[in-house]
Amino acid sequence: MRYELYYWPTIQGRGEFVRLALAEAGADYVDVARSRKDGGVTAMMRLMESDAVKTPSFAPPFLKAGKLIIGQTANILLYLGGCHKLAPANEAGRLWTHQLQLTLADLVAEAHDVHHPLGANFYYEDQKKESRHRAGDFIESRIPKFLRFFERVLEQNKSKEHLVGRSVSYADLSMFQVVAGLNYAFPRAMLRLKDRYPRVFALHAAVASRPRIAAYLASDRRIPFNEEGIFRHYRELDD
Amino acid sequence: MRYELYYWPTIQGRGEFVRLALAEAGADYVDVARSRKDGGVTAMMRLMESDAVKTPSFAPPFLKAGKLIIGQTANILLYLGGCHKLAPANEAGRLWTHQLQLTLADLVAEAHDVHHPLGANFYYEDQKKESRHRAGDFIESRIPKFLRFFERVLEQNKSKEHLVGRSVSYADLSMFQVVAGLNYAFPRAMLRLKDRYPRVFALHAAVASRPRIAAYLASDRRIPFNEEGIFRHYRELDD
Repeated sequence: MRYELYYWPTIQGRGEFVRLALAEAGADYVDVARSRKDGGVTAMMRLMESDAVKTPSFAPPFLKAGKLIIGQTANILLYLGGCHKLAPANEAGRLWTHQLQLTLADLVAEAHDVHHPLGANFYYEDQKKESRHRAGDFIESRIPKFLRFFERVLEQNKSKEHLVGRSVSYADLSMFQVVAGLNYAFPRAMLRLKDRYPRVFALHAAVASRPRIAAYLASDRRIPFNEEGIFRHYRELDD
Repeated sequence: MRYELYYWPTIQGRGEFVRLALAEAGADYVDVARSRKDGGVTAMMRLMESDAVKTPSFAPPFLKAGKLIIGQTANILLYLGGCHKLAPANEAGRLWTHQLQLTLADLVAEAHDVHHPLGANFYYEDQKKESRHRAGDFIESRIPKFLRFFERVLEQNKSKEHLVGRSVSYADLSMFQVVAGLNYAFPRAMLRLKDRYPRVFALHAAVASRPRIAAYLASDRRIPFNEEGIFRHYRELDD
């Protein structure tokens, strides 16, 4: 089966968590909105609005898997985790992996709010002052709180470089992506935190060097970070 | 088995989505932090920090179910949905219900951000101006966008009063809670929207009149909405 991923073609965004899972799984998929010279986004929007779709999505990403159309990033990963052994097969492990994913999703939402505290419908340029305010709290308080939590999970799990059990899970891939995103957006702040959360940064490095992930990251399937996505680098927010 | 729910004792918050599912299921549970005259929150924090817990939570709520300790609201509901027939048993239905729940969770997070656009670590009183800005967008753009989506889901499903299939799911209970919260926080805005999303409001009424939910809502287990929770009524934001 060839999966169809529907997501914005010019950003990593939330779709990137799915792309990484598909890459690690070695799955056959087409990134629909990127695969067509034009019309890809139109096709995506059509599928979002179509009454023929019984399980419409509020927003991208969504994944077509045979007859299923699955929306919400964490939900797509829950599904892929089961299909491609990117999560334990037993219920306890499956729930724990999903819990970690949802916690990462909370951090991702906060990372987005940093540059859009007044709402996603307004330009960053019109909320720079408020963004600075929020960024200060995010860097001083929120990033450390989240990374401390994941550092503890890694410490408890004993297995280096894995959040869950002894093999790679989609939560590991997502943790990699979050650290990569934070490194991009807040390089100075993250440099200061590196020594405090060594396991988190080691996991990031370990995932990056997995053969399929490394190949993916080196390919043009990996869209560079940019200031349209979730993790944005604005020099003035990284203080 | 008696469940143990761990959540803040004085607010509905995210714990309320779990409380409603437990009420509808007729499950035996203790609301730990509320059940003790004092020490309940201490017990909750201890379980969050304990190294003996292999699946620690970043934040409440979390649910103890036998040997499992499950965190993240949507994840708890995924589990309870399977145990208490509050979601379809087949994979497609289970994923769809979860997708809807995660979409509701996004709306809940935005409802919280309305009164804390600069960050949860600062007092509302110190971000009133920014809150007004964000509230305007939330009322004008975001609430309608979300309610329009759920209205469409209800319309497509044919079965009145259910988001998924022909029986109640945890997504229905959560939709009820979101509408109840928005009604509390933004009564004037919601009054204006009532005619535009009749199915959403009908679902809210239908859930409220389910025998177990009605009994729960009338009991002192239902904590009144207040200005410490997620849905807060500040007159100045409801314009």
